[in-house]
Amino acid sequence: MSFTVVARDGAARAGVLETAHGPVQTPVFMPVGTQATVKAVSSADLTAVGAQVVLGNTYHLALRPGAELVRSLGGLHGFMAWPRAILTDSGGFQIFSLRGRRTIDEDGVTFQSHLDGSAQRFTPEGAMGVQAALGSDIAMAFDECPPADAAPDAMRAAIDRTTRWARRCLDVAPARGQLRFGIVQGGTDLGMRRAHLAEIAALPFDGLALGGFSVGEPPPVMHAAVTALAPEMPPDRPRYLMGVGTPLDLLICIAAGIDMFDCVLPTRNARNGQLFVPGGRLNIANAVHRQDAGPVDADCSCEACRSYGRAYLAHLFHAKELLYYRLATLHNLQHFLDLARGARAAILEGRLAAYVAERRRPLEANLET
Amino acid sequence: MSFTVVARDGAARAGVLETAHGPVQTPVFMPVGTQATVKAVSSADLTAVGAQVVLGNTYHLALRPGAELVRSLGGLHGFMAWPRAILTDSGGFQIFSLRGRRTIDEDGVTFQSHLDGSAQRFTPEGAMGVQAALGSDIAMAFDECPPADAAPDAMRAAIDRTTRWARRCLDVAPARGQLRFGIVQGGTDLGMRRAHLAEIAALPFDGLALGGFSVGEPPPVMHAAVTALAPEMPPDRPRYLMGVGTPLDLLICIAAGIDMFDCVLPTRNARNGQLFVPGGRLNIANAVHRQDAGPVDADCSCEACRSYGRAYLAHLFHAKELLYYRLATLHNLQHFLDLARGARAAILEGRLAAYVAERRRPLEANLET
Repeated sequence: MSFTVVARDGAARAGVLETAHGPVQTPVFMPVGTQATVKAVSSADLTAVGAQVVLGNTYHLALRPGAELVRSLGGLHGFMAWPRAILTDSGGFQIFSLRGRRTIDEDGVTFQSHLDGSAQRFTPEGAMGVQAALGSDIAMAFDECPPADAAPDAMRAAIDRTTRWARRCLDVAPARGQLRFGIVQGGTDLGMRRAHLAEIAALPFDGLALGGFSVGEPPPVMHAAVTALAPEMPPDRPRYLMGVGTPLDLLICIAAGIDMFDCVLPTRNARNGQLFVPGGRLNIANAVHRQDAGPVDADCSCEACRSYGRAYLAHLFHAKELLYYRLATLHNLQHFLDLARGARAAILEGRLAAYVAERRRPLEANLET
Repeated sequence: MSFTVVARDGAARAGVLETAHGPVQTPVFMPVGTQATVKAVSSADLTAVGAQVVLGNTYHLALRPGAELVRSLGGLHGFMAWPRAILTDSGGFQIFSLRGRRTIDEDGVTFQSHLDGSAQRFTPEGAMGVQAALGSDIAMAFDECPPADAAPDAMRAAIDRTTRWARRCLDVAPARGQLRFGIVQGGTDLGMRRAHLAEIAALPFDGLALGGFSVGEPPPVMHAAVTALAPEMPPDRPRYLMGVGTPLDLLICIAAGIDMFDCVLPTRNARNGQLFVPGGRLNIANAVHRQDAGPVDADCSCEACRSYGRAYLAHLFHAKELLYYRLATLHNLQHFLDLARGARAAILEGRLAAYVAERRRPLEANLET
């Protein structure tokens, strides 16, 4: 077994996922490193904020610099000098986002590269082959991602194809020590979700993911669906909620029994001037920060909060100085990683409900979405 | 005395400049932090590459965020969290670069802000007042910077005014412990340079700077002028060659007796893809680097060279990833700082000529300009 649940608190779990590059303590938030870099920060920075596992993006890396080049340079770990765990997505989400520039058939998807318009093709076998070349610790199955508003027939067809593709993914030899996760689709229809979960859970994946959430549905709808579904997922395998989410999403879904999360929110919003604090979010462009010598969050241990004041970050942001992007990213990552780490500690001590309630109240009062 | 020469080797000197924020060992290269940040790197990064003193830009900081705001936030040291020495230029060079957007009179210069077009005015007293508010360790006198191709009469008039302004600068009370440097102008005309040097050297400045070099004249012309002038500068005060230069410039001018340098070359060129190596420069965009797992410089101790290969830097550069700019900047700064540090060690051991010759040969063979 690569996954061990070490404690439970209500539906929530604290666990340890063993990977070829060390253990990952769950619940865990995984920073997104789309192009073999978590935008604006280095591998030493990721270590400093306590990241245990980062994401790589199969679609982007296959197009640039190319999977075989990465393999020849020591795989993604050697290429980006990241010694801990890496999860690669399958590329499915990006490719299916290329509406009008991709055509699906039973064997796979043909699409146009966003870089140069060249014709490209991904199949389940190809996507797993790319992930084997990248040498990630966790490879995701290549799924068809139906739009959130897909009609029931279209949703069912996408689900059925995702199951057939999942079986084909498992027929491909993984990289040495590489774990493979299956993806459950079905939108917000619990019936379809449960049917698909049963199909994917029956396959010998090392973990299961919920895809197709946080794609435009109202957060309470997602929270309700995940709260219903997570406890029905196999208890002995890690549960990964893809592309989610806000601090509020994390708190609610950890309580529901989700173990793993990823989202571009902390990194992307940092670059746009939005910094996460215990009570919600602040916009560093706001005039109130211009003369404030105090840190973004006095309780935060990131380099930005330890060394610099809000006024300095505001100045860097207004002046479009490169240092802003790194400091803001470090802060937001620290906030998300600490939130998940704190939840784990609370689960181990049987006080998750209080941990969630204490943090949830100000977030909801500030109408965080 | 704030400056002590601890060793001589030919015309070159190794010295220690005592500042309110610690000693600066010369010869020294000073990274340029125009807007209270050396572009792309943090104060911890500057410490890691061994920077002893950084520049702040009076013109830029007066316009944004404003000198009084910086004063209220602990001065430039507190604002940018830099515990070591800071030198501020006077703003003269930037203001005189605003041709067509500034008018000079005997009292000072009126100009349009490059940020919003608003009318602004700098006088010798005002420029020193801003530098006192910024709290730099070394303040530069406010000089008139004549263009390199100024006619002799215009050059003479600028020099005379610079001397009158230098006297006015010295009448302003500096910040506590702040040193003040005078600036010698005169283009490449040695007669005018010598006359102006005599005037400025007669004033009680803590150090003397050569301004108006590296403004378009051929490098050999600058090298010849500095080699003639530097030994004639007061031996008991630090000698600062403003805005210079390339590694070759540094080697030649350290041998001539210059103690301090600043230039945007390492930081700006890093962002454009040009990385400095012992034999010259490499362009990371060059196809030859795409599959090269080796570091930019195996002998360099910067984070980029310790952790990452050329192929990874090339990937980041092509993908316009923010991490590239920081890693490239760290590397180029390390290269320049190590070059000056190495020269100091060579002076202390009486082997500067060999140090310069060994490094000069490949640089000249590669036609570095």
